[in-house]
Amino acid sequence: MPAYRAPLRDMRFVFDEVLDAYATLQSLPSQREFGNDLGGAILEEAAKLAENVLAPLNGPGDKQGCQYDPQSKAVKTPDGFPAAYKQFAEGGWTALACAPEFGGQGLPHVLNMMVEEMVCSANLSLGMYPGLTHGAINALTEHGTREQQDQYLPKLISGEWTGTMCLTEPQCGTDLGLIRTRALPQADGSYAISGTKIWITGGEHDLADNIAHLVLAKLPDAPDSVKGISLFLVPKFLEDGTRNPAFCGGLEHKMGIKGSATCVMNFEGARGWLIGEPNKGLKCMFTMMNSARLMVGMQGLGIAESAYQVSLGFAKERLQSRSLSGPKVADKPADPILVHPDVRRMLLRQKVMIEGCRALAYFTGMHLDVAHDHEDPQVRQQSDDLVQLLTPVVKAFLTDEGFNCANDGLQVLGGSGFTEDWGIEQLVRDCRITRIYEGTNGIQALDLVGRKLALGGGRAVRSYFALVEGWLKANADAPHAAAVGKALKQLQQATMWIATEGMKDPEQAGAASVPYLRLFALTTLAWFWSRMALTAQHKLAAGSSESAFYGAKLKSADFYMARVLTETDSLLAEVQAGKSSLMAFSEEEFAA
Amino acid sequence: MPAYRAPLRDMRFVFDEVLDAYATLQSLPSQREFGNDLGGAILEEAAKLAENVLAPLNGPGDKQGCQYDPQSKAVKTPDGFPAAYKQFAEGGWTALACAPEFGGQGLPHVLNMMVEEMVCSANLSLGMYPGLTHGAINALTEHGTREQQDQYLPKLISGEWTGTMCLTEPQCGTDLGLIRTRALPQADGSYAISGTKIWITGGEHDLADNIAHLVLAKLPDAPDSVKGISLFLVPKFLEDGTRNPAFCGGLEHKMGIKGSATCVMNFEGARGWLIGEPNKGLKCMFTMMNSARLMVGMQGLGIAESAYQVSLGFAKERLQSRSLSGPKVADKPADPILVHPDVRRMLLRQKVMIEGCRALAYFTGMHLDVAHDHEDPQVRQQSDDLVQLLTPVVKAFLTDEGFNCANDGLQVLGGSGFTEDWGIEQLVRDCRITRIYEGTNGIQALDLVGRKLALGGGRAVRSYFALVEGWLKANADAPHAAAVGKALKQLQQATMWIATEGMKDPEQAGAASVPYLRLFALTTLAWFWSRMALTAQHKLAAGSSESAFYGAKLKSADFYMARVLTETDSLLAEVQAGKSSLMAFSEEEFAA
Repeated sequence: MPAYRAPLRDMRFVFDEVLDAYATLQSLPSQREFGNDLGGAILEEAAKLAENVLAPLNGPGDKQGCQYDPQSKAVKTPDGFPAAYKQFAEGGWTALACAPEFGGQGLPHVLNMMVEEMVCSANLSLGMYPGLTHGAINALTEHGTREQQDQYLPKLISGEWTGTMCLTEPQCGTDLGLIRTRALPQADGSYAISGTKIWITGGEHDLADNIAHLVLAKLPDAPDSVKGISLFLVPKFLEDGTRNPAFCGGLEHKMGIKGSATCVMNFEGARGWLIGEPNKGLKCMFTMMNSARLMVGMQGLGIAESAYQVSLGFAKERLQSRSLSGPKVADKPADPILVHPDVRRMLLRQKVMIEGCRALAYFTGMHLDVAHDHEDPQVRQQSDDLVQLLTPVVKAFLTDEGFNCANDGLQVLGGSGFTEDWGIEQLVRDCRITRIYEGTNGIQALDLVGRKLALGGGRAVRSYFALVEGWLKANADAPHAAAVGKALKQLQQATMWIATEGMKDPEQAGAASVPYLRLFALTTLAWFWSRMALTAQHKLAAGSSESAFYGAKLKSADFYMARVLTETDSLLAEVQAGKSSLMAFSEEEFAA
Repeated sequence: MPAYRAPLRDMRFVFDEVLDAYATLQSLPSQREFGNDLGGAILEEAAKLAENVLAPLNGPGDKQGCQYDPQSKAVKTPDGFPAAYKQFAEGGWTALACAPEFGGQGLPHVLNMMVEEMVCSANLSLGMYPGLTHGAINALTEHGTREQQDQYLPKLISGEWTGTMCLTEPQCGTDLGLIRTRALPQADGSYAISGTKIWITGGEHDLADNIAHLVLAKLPDAPDSVKGISLFLVPKFLEDGTRNPAFCGGLEHKMGIKGSATCVMNFEGARGWLIGEPNKGLKCMFTMMNSARLMVGMQGLGIAESAYQVSLGFAKERLQSRSLSGPKVADKPADPILVHPDVRRMLLRQKVMIEGCRALAYFTGMHLDVAHDHEDPQVRQQSDDLVQLLTPVVKAFLTDEGFNCANDGLQVLGGSGFTEDWGIEQLVRDCRITRIYEGTNGIQALDLVGRKLALGGGRAVRSYFALVEGWLKANADAPHAAAVGKALKQLQQATMWIATEGMKDPEQAGAASVPYLRLFALTTLAWFWSRMALTAQHKLAAGSSESAFYGAKLKSADFYMARVLTETDSLLAEVQAGKSSLMAFSEEEFAA
């Protein structure tokens, strides 16, 4: 497998040149000092870590997997993982965007997302451990008491400890109202937590000294729905060093991310402390979940980038047949397969999806920072609306396309791609889970059409449409502005259809949700491709010496419009097809 | 993992009721006696074998895989495989459609394809061994001398021996002109074969007494292209029992089909015999390849059916959340996920693709029999045209959709689908190779637009269009006839575009090939859905008691037209987008 190289030039292009993100971030009180020099230096260091430390462990970690010892109930991660994690934590990477008052570096969230992209390109399994810790950090930061924060945040932020999110149980994943884990109040103000959780990433491992489990459980007499769940902090080791009875009962055997320990966790009257208010656990959970969803999107993007690099490298080297327009490398026995139109199609689909998704993700990440830190509450609100609206799109579309890119990449390699030798089949397997966890992509689509379109009575989506329309008006001469405008009209038609029909009948919105999310994403990517092409045009007009780089952006935008955006017609038709053909089937008829 | 149940009722519906295949087959001299009783009984027996013998070994075979012993150069298949293979062979399943004069049963090829579907639903890895043998049988039947046939065919047909297709070498897969394996003529008329072949399915194993390798190699001074390759028969054991130096050098480590031994084969001056004429090996190879391509299509279909059964079973049992239109099973804590529109969408996509693909495949298989055996040469020609035209569509579309169905199925299961417990992740991994081997699906698309559209100066495609148009004219009242007509017009537009532009510039045809094949397939499935709905209508009108069964066909047709066929607009646009956005990129720009 060819070595992963972080796409720093392209990351800079999107962040700096297209989004002008430094200017936006510097308008925030917390980021006045955050400039090109600092940002660039951090990204370069992250790239080195990803390329040299994390990536080499990815293939071996997949082959070795994690081992569970039923005697000690301990989990051993793959060789090299503990040392690499230590290097990761000591380098300050766990602390990047965390609060300075608890030892964090206070750098922008979007920077953290950019680092996450590289980490996931290099080694998704290893990246899961610190990734999940961030959920715990966010929950404690937002909902913990000062005492809880003082006790846990510095250790979690430094990476000395890790965190988990313990939500799923055997009988419930998506429907958390069904959980059975119980929390009994104790005389000292703590709770005794009992129950079984499954699919707990990093529930047990050998990377850190302690693990802070954030556990959803029910108080006695809690209502029988999501309104009756509360969030508890359950550490592996208590303050006095005693082992809390929160044990790993085994590991899942999975299709991929085999270096990530996916644990069954048995809480056997373990001591825990309430986080936030009783019966408001779902709200706290969403604090963890929302940022986790953006991070899962970055996982999809990271995998796609790796797949592209592997398949492009192969296509340049592999000699098979001659170009249909005559030999291109006459002194070799055949031409590299990169000459063939359909190989180019598979590579360019990856390329434009990756770069378009990168722009969408960084844009969303930048607004996450604005939503947190801007001085003007109205600006904060606008950015928060955008982030809320775009989060399910980022999560679902970037992971769907991560999987598609990995598969297109594998297909470029042909039979070689199916063998373990090139590592790309691992990317396909690893990526598959990203479409499922932190809410399946179907759930993301329901979140978009149900919660997010309704946000502020449609305020979020209207303001997003106004943003794109305003840009199109101001940049009517931008490359492909007309195509963007046409797609936007289709998206607006689809939105109107859902607003009208879904109001009358929520199953109509459910039936439309997945094609609608895809239409939303493809339209948004069209906007970003138009913006990227415009930036490239300006750079070329200004006489940039990077003519291949900027020329490729213009050509990529052409490809996107000509051969990807074509899908919007079909998606709009599918949205408008409505629910009838889905709901007509009886259970019996599904098997007939 | 729920047990596989062969979809016999649906197979009968397509074969007997929609295609009226018994009548067509009985018009062939070789199949006068082949009727409903015999066909039905054979399919029922095959179903039992698949369900009870092959399916239980599928999961364990994946976990155990094949083992190679470098000392003896022997390969051990998973536990239970040798006994199951023996039962398969002794039951006469290897001999089903083979020539009676060599011990075959002389039954229709299409029946063999139907059996293959069930075998691949149950256990793709195990099905590979007899599957590949058929290629060898076909090559010998068509191109072998009578002596070669007498010596090998009875043993291959009885399954006592197996066969391989040794084409690929490290430096060439798609481009067979690059092979380096050499064949030196010997004084006794045999050849000494030397070279290394890779990805040889069943190159070595413990299922049978002998292996007949069919090996592409070059004679001394052969031209340096595909016009210089010849086909040789190289047995593992020679007639006198001595071991021929054709040794397995190791096994590939693969993403899936781990129970199928994928071998590196070293031919070290092994004795072989020429099959067919010198330097005409490619023609012989295509004899093997064409029937193998149809069989690979059946693999995709078989996997899709299994995935559908698993995911439908899960969706009926798994309780999560309430229906958006109010509780459906009020006495349970939640409703089965089958109530949710998007879960239905994922299941119904599988359902209509599977049943549509089944109709396409059996139709093609039926014409394969007509092409072989009809008394009227003109009828034979017409059927042969159809088979040639549809073979790349069957291979590529059924495997692409097999993969899509397996992935949709996995998604229905959510996190459970990603674990090994339900077996569906294995279906995704196993199916992935079917899009690659026997010619990647990109190569199938090139075959369609390059060779097959040109067949007889366009005769094949014209006659296919006339067939569909004739049916539409005769059945103007059939459900969805207008939608089929619209899709057919789009397909004709696309065909015309390729005929015009591809003639001027073959890269235009190459750029259009993959979306064109998909457009071809979706249109063809629309035709079959209209036919299936019409049949169902007739049955219901005639008062059939199977109202759920036939009602489901009508509803499935509605779903296909409303939510699947919508894709044709986008595909036509992509075809017509042309090559420019693909070919504009320099090699450097791909990485920019």
